Amino acid sequence: MTAEPHQLTATEVLHEIKAGKLTVEAYARSLLKRINDRDEAVQAWAYLDRDHVISQAKALDQVPVSERDPLHGIAIAVKDVIYTKGEKNFVFSTDRNRAKRKSDMPTQFNSPIYVDDAPQVDAGSVAILRKSGALIFGKTTTTEFAATTVGPKTRNPHDPNRTPGGSSSGSGAAVGDLQVPIGLGTQTGGSTIRPGSYNGIYAFKPTWNSITREGQKIYSLILDTLGFYARSAADLDLLADVFALADDKPAPLDFGVKGAKFAVLKTMVWPQIGSGGSAAMEKAVSLLRARGAEIEEIELPEHLNDLPAWRATVLDSDGRTAFLPEYTTTKHNLSEDLVGHVENVKTISRKAQLDAFDSIAAARPVVDDILSKYAAVLTPSVPDEAPLGIEKTGSAAFCLIWTVSVIFARSVRFEPQLTPIQALHTPVVNIPGFKGDNGMPIGVSLVAPRYHDRHLLAVSRAVGDIFEAEGGWKRDV
Amino acid sequence: MTAEPHQLTATEVLHEIKAGKLTVEAYARSLLKRINDRDEAVQAWAYLDRDHVISQAKALDQVPVSERDPLHGIAIAVKDVIYTKGEKNFVFSTDRNRAKRKSDMPTQFNSPIYVDDAPQVDAGSVAILRKSGALIFGKTTTTEFAATTVGPKTRNPHDPNRTPGGSSSGSGAAVGDLQVPIGLGTQTGGSTIRPGSYNGIYAFKPTWNSITREGQKIYSLILDTLGFYARSAADLDLLADVFALADDKPAPLDFGVKGAKFAVLKTMVWPQIGSGGSAAMEKAVSLLRARGAEIEEIELPEHLNDLPAWRATVLDSDGRTAFLPEYTTTKHNLSEDLVGHVENVKTISRKAQLDAFDSIAAARPVVDDILSKYAAVLTPSVPDEAPLGIEKTGSAAFCLIWTVSVIFARSVRFEPQLTPIQALHTPVVNIPGFKGDNGMPIGVSLVAPRYHDRHLLAVSRAVGDIFEAEGGWKRDV
Repeated sequence: MTAEPHQLTATEVLHEIKAGKLTVEAYARSLLKRINDRDEAVQAWAYLDRDHVISQAKALDQVPVSERDPLHGIAIAVKDVIYTKGEKNFVFSTDRNRAKRKSDMPTQFNSPIYVDDAPQVDAGSVAILRKSGALIFGKTTTTEFAATTVGPKTRNPHDPNRTPGGSSSGSGAAVGDLQVPIGLGTQTGGSTIRPGSYNGIYAFKPTWNSITREGQKIYSLILDTLGFYARSAADLDLLADVFALADDKPAPLDFGVKGAKFAVLKTMVWPQIGSGGSAAMEKAVSLLRARGAEIEEIELPEHLNDLPAWRATVLDSDGRTAFLPEYTTTKHNLSEDLVGHVENVKTISRKAQLDAFDSIAAARPVVDDILSKYAAVLTPSVPDEAPLGIEKTGSAAFCLIWTVSVIFARSVRFEPQLTPIQALHTPVVNIPGFKGDNGMPIGVSLVAPRYHDRHLLAVSRAVGDIFEAEGGWKRDV
Repeated sequence: MTAEPHQLTATEVLHEIKAGKLTVEAYARSLLKRINDRDEAVQAWAYLDRDHVISQAKALDQVPVSERDPLHGIAIAVKDVIYTKGEKNFVFSTDRNRAKRKSDMPTQFNSPIYVDDAPQVDAGSVAILRKSGALIFGKTTTTEFAATTVGPKTRNPHDPNRTPGGSSSGSGAAVGDLQVPIGLGTQTGGSTIRPGSYNGIYAFKPTWNSITREGQKIYSLILDTLGFYARSAADLDLLADVFALADDKPAPLDFGVKGAKFAVLKTMVWPQIGSGGSAAMEKAVSLLRARGAEIEEIELPEHLNDLPAWRATVLDSDGRTAFLPEYTTTKHNLSEDLVGHVENVKTISRKAQLDAFDSIAAARPVVDDILSKYAAVLTPSVPDEAPLGIEKTGSAAFCLIWTVSVIFARSVRFEPQLTPIQALHTPVVNIPGFKGDNGMPIGVSLVAPRYHDRHLLAVSRAVGDIFEAEGGWKRDV
C-alpha cells in the first residue's frame, strides 16, 4: 500500500483486509491516529472510546476468514441520534462500575436531557451493520435531536473557521476528514445532503422507509430518513447491498453518461444562488454535455408551488408530537424552537396540518412521473460552499435556496431551512467535485423517483467519476 | 368505599387518592392481590415484578400532595412491544447483580431474540405517563412483535377457553379482568380494537401520529398507532389530556345523543357477520334511535373498494423493511410470516407498493369528508364474540369481516386479518356493552375524521353510558 489505511475508501479497505494485507486492528489504529492528529481541529465526535474500538477490532480479527461478513472491519461513525449499545461482556477494567460505564456507547442527541444515557439497544440500522461485520466506531455530533440549526462544536475539516453543516455535522466532518470511511446521518430537511456538500463527500438519502428507522430519534415520521456518507459511490453500493435496497429493475451494471438524458431543475429563486453553487451547476452540465449526455431544463407544475409551505406545516405539527415526551419530563432542558413546536406557537390548525399532509402525498406520484423521464435530475445540494462560522449549520439564506433548489414557495409560512424534496421521499445523492470562491467543496445532487435507489447509485458512480476528476475541487486534508 | 380498589376505574381511583381515602401502596396491593388470584387463569403478564411495583407505589405516596401529577398512582400495563426502563437507583437486594437485573423492566416482543433484553430507555409514551404520575406496572403479552396472529399464553378473562384477541392480548385481558385500570396497546391492523371488543372494555386508537411512537416496535410506519384500554370513556379522556390531544374545535362538554346524526357503515360482506356482531349493531342502532338520534346507512365510494388490498400491500412491503434487522442478525428465531415479509415472498413490486401507498393517501381526505357529516359513524369492532381457542388471536373469517366492516376488497391480494380503516389514520373507539350467543362481550366501534379525537371521546361517553346500561352484557369477573 502506498496510501495510509485511513485514507482508503471502504471498498479499498475490504480489498486489503481480504487480501491479508491489513488487519482490522492495524486499520483501526490508523484511524485512531488520524483522529488523534485531527480531533482538536475538527471535533467530530460526541463519544469515542479508543480502547473499546481496539477491543472490537481485535475480536473481528479473530473471526475465521470463511465466516467473515460483507463489511468485515469497516469503521462506521454513527450520528448521535441513533441508538448504539456497548459490546456485551466487554470488560474494560477490574473496577466493575467503570467497566459497566465504559462498555456503554451512550446516545445523547446533543441534549442535556440525555447526558450519560446509555440505552442497551442498537438501532435497526446499527444492528444490521454490526452483524455485517462493521466496526461501530463511535458517536458523532449532531444539532439538538437533529432538529435545530444550532451547530455543535464541530468544524469543517477543510477550514476550521467554517461549519461542516448539519444536522449530521460530525458524521459529515469525520468522513470528509478521513477519520472513518463511512458515516451514518439522518435527514428531515437537508441534514444529510448539506454536510455532504460542505465536506466534499458523497451523501446518500435513500427512499423514505426503504431502511428501518427503528432506534433513530423521531422528529417527523413522514419525513425522517437515515442517510449515509462515504468517499466513493462504490461504498454507497456496499451499504445498499447490506440494507437490501432493491429497485424493480436491476440497475445498469455499467451506466454510461453518453446518450443518457438528464434534467436540471431550477426555480424562481435561482437568481439567489451563490456564485459557487451556480458555477458548480454550470460546470456539472457542461461536463455531462461534453461526455455526450442530453440535458434539458425542467420545472415542476405550478400547483406544487406551496410544497415547501406544506412541508413546513407538517414538520412543525410533527414536532408538536415528537417532543412532547421531553417537554413533559424536562421542558427547561429543551431549546426554545422545540418548545415552540410542542406549544404550537405558530397556531397551526389540524385542518392546515392535514391539508398539508395530504397535499404532499398527492404530489409524490406527480413528481415521480416527472423524474422518471431522466437518468437523473440535477439540482444544487446547497447554494454555495460552507459559510464562515460554526454557530449555525447553514444560514437561512443559503438553506432557503437549497430548499428551493427543487421547488420554491411564496407562502409566508415557508421556513427557509426546510427542503421540500425530502417530503417527496425520493432518493438523493450528493456528488462532490466542485469548489467555491474560497476553495471549499461544493456538490451537486442527483435525484431519481422513489425506489430507484440502485439505479441512482449506478448513475452516481459514472457521474461521480467525471465530477471528481474534472469538477475542480480536490480533497486536501 | 364499597368496591375494592382493583375494581375502580382510573378516574375513580384518582378521586379516592385525592380524597385521602386510598394510598398508592394500598391500591397497588389490591391490584397485586387481584393478579395473584387470577393470573393462573388469565396469564396477561409478560413481566411483572411485584416488589418493584410496591417500591414505586411507596415512592409515589411520598410525593407531597401539592406536587402530584395528573395520573398520580394510576396503574398502567404496557404492551411488551413498548420500551420501559427500570427505576433508576432502585436497589432490590444487597446482591448487586440481582439488584441490577431486578430493576430492569425488559422489553421482549414475544420473540426469543429479545429474551432478557433490557434497554434502559422509556418509550416516549411511557416517559409521558411516568412523569404524569402513573405507576408503570409491568409488561403485558403480545403476539410476536405485534405482527403475527399466533396467540401468546393469555386467555380471555370471561372464558379461559377463548382468546382475548391480539396482538394487544395481555393489556386487553388485564384491563378486562380488573388487574389494572389502564393498558397500552398498539394497532397496525385491529390489534387494539379487537381485544377491546373481546374483553368487554373501551379501546381507543387515536389519530395516527397524534401521540409519539418513539420506542414502540415498528411494523409499519404509516399504519402503527399507540392504543389505550380502559373501563370507562372518562378514563380515556384522562389519557387524552396527558397526551395533549387537541381538536381544532373544543369537544362538546355534554354531548347529547338526542337529535345527533350518526351513520352505520355496512359493506357487501355484511351477510358474513356473526349473529353476535349483527345483533350488537342492530341493538346499538335501536338504542340510539330510541334516544332520539338520527341514523342513516352509508357506503364508501366504489373507487375505494381496493383499499384493503392496498393496505395489505403496504403492510407486507413495510414488513420487508421492519424486520430486516432481526432477519439479518438471527433469522432462525423469526417466525415464518416475518421471514416471508423480508424475503418478499409475495413478490410485491415497488410499483405496486407505491401505488398502494399513494392510493391510501388519496383516500384519507375523501373518507374524512364522509365521516365529518356525522357525530360518529358506527361500524362493527369484530364480527362476533371471542372465538374458542387461544392459538389464534382472531380467526381469519372473523377478522375478514371485521376488516370489511368498513370496506371490502374483492382483490385476491386482500389479507383478511388486516383492517383498512387503520390505513385511514382516523380515531376509533370500541364501546363495550353487547353480548354474543355464548354470553361473551361484543363491542361496537365509533369512528370520526382525523384529529377529531376529543370530539369522538365526548360522543363515546354519551354512547357508552347507553350501551353499557342497556346493551345486555355486564362485566362478571
